[in-house]
Amino acid sequence: MHKASLQVETSGRGLYEITGDLERIVAESKIDDGICVVFLRHTSASLLIQENADPSVQQDFLAFFARLVPDGDSLFTHRAEGPDDMAAHLRCALTHTSEVVPVGDGALCLGTWQGLYLFEHRIQPHRRRVEIRVFGES
Amino acid sequence: MHKASLQVETSGRGLYEITGDLERIVAESKIDDGICVVFLRHTSASLLIQENADPSVQQDFLAFFARLVPDGDSLFTHRAEGPDDMAAHLRCALTHTSEVVPVGDGALCLGTWQGLYLFEHRIQPHRRRVEIRVFGES
Amino acid sequence: MHKASLQVETSGRGLYEITGDLERIVAESKIDDGICVVFLRHTSASLLIQENADPSVQQDFLAFFARLVPDGDSLFTHRAEGPDDMAAHLRCALTHTSEVVPVGDGALCLGTWQGLYLFEHRIQPHRRRVEIRVFGES
Repeated sequence: MHKASLQVETSGRGLYEITGDLERIVAESKIDDGICVVFLRHTSASLLIQENADPSVQQDFLAFFARLVPDGDSLFTHRAEGPDDMAAHLRCALTHTSEVVPVGDGALCLGTWQGLYLFEHRIQPHRRRVEIRVFGES
Repeated sequence: MHKASLQVETSGRGLYEITGDLERIVAESKIDDGICVVFLRHTSASLLIQENADPSVQQDFLAFFARLVPDGDSLFTHRAEGPDDMAAHLRCALTHTSEVVPVGDGALCLGTWQGLYLFEHRIQPHRRRVEIRVFGES
Repeated sequence: MHKASLQVETSGRGLYEITGDLERIVAESKIDDGICVVFLRHTSASLLIQENADPSVQQDFLAFFARLVPDGDSLFTHRAEGPDDMAAHLRCALTHTSEVVPVGDGALCLGTWQGLYLFEHRIQPHRRRVEIRVFGES
């Protein structure tokens, strides 16, 4: 087993690709076949495996979630940290906190168009911590 | 590898924290570094890692899902067990059936504000089974 | 560790059960207790663990997602592959790309009503690749 962690400095709401960091950690692990577990230690940001080619996909993601879970929705009573607080928790719940990606031939077995992203849901910049475990055979 | 299971008696729709039970199972496993896999054996309840501090977050979760996937929606044809039956399946699909939490220093590597919850989507009380596997090094 | 992959030929939008294929792979692995990691290498199809008994559940899933994330929504700018392109990415993000199912007594520890499905979100048929890892003790 190989253990690592990442710090990601976000500059506000948006998608931040971490595929390259994860590939580096898998290479360091010397594990050829197995799994890479990715876990985000926050409740107002999340993980997303999505298309990494066309930037318009990322814009549409932001537009869709802005409509589905609006900031400052009158439904929300939890507003401790502002109008994007509860919206961020809900967007996190609708996407993912943990992902498990298979490892093969010493690399992540992602599809051609797949990238792994940290999805920041807060408007202000945040420092986010990602915890990683790689298991398998060298 | 360490294997365990939990039974959770729910008293109807709502969030039930199981973080303490999982911490106990990780301690029993004697595994210091690794992963804890959590799996819920049901299709009308789910798992959620969310903010464990302010109870208003949980109320807002219930209100949001009540609006997004209303009980007895005229769209639904599957009503075998009542108006909350299909709504429960959909709320389950939009959240999570499996979660993987890293283990470090013999404990779950959760963020400061993260708790792991069983999210009961049915109105009536149910007995729910959670299956757990802990992998890693002692 | 046991490693396998599946190819699933979809005939368009819908749910395709792969529980039987996974059970076969777990049996081949000779692993009695552990976990089965399932990963889909695509961003316009996803994984779903859902009720496997009543076919109306699957129809209601399709109807609900058609309303929640409509094809050709005027919000979408990413239309490279047609009106179902961006809708497929979003439906994928709202469901799951990876699932981890515990293994016990040499079989998947699914609940009585749980089946594992590949959820095809594109209208045209596609060839989908599922990557599998089984870990544990024989």
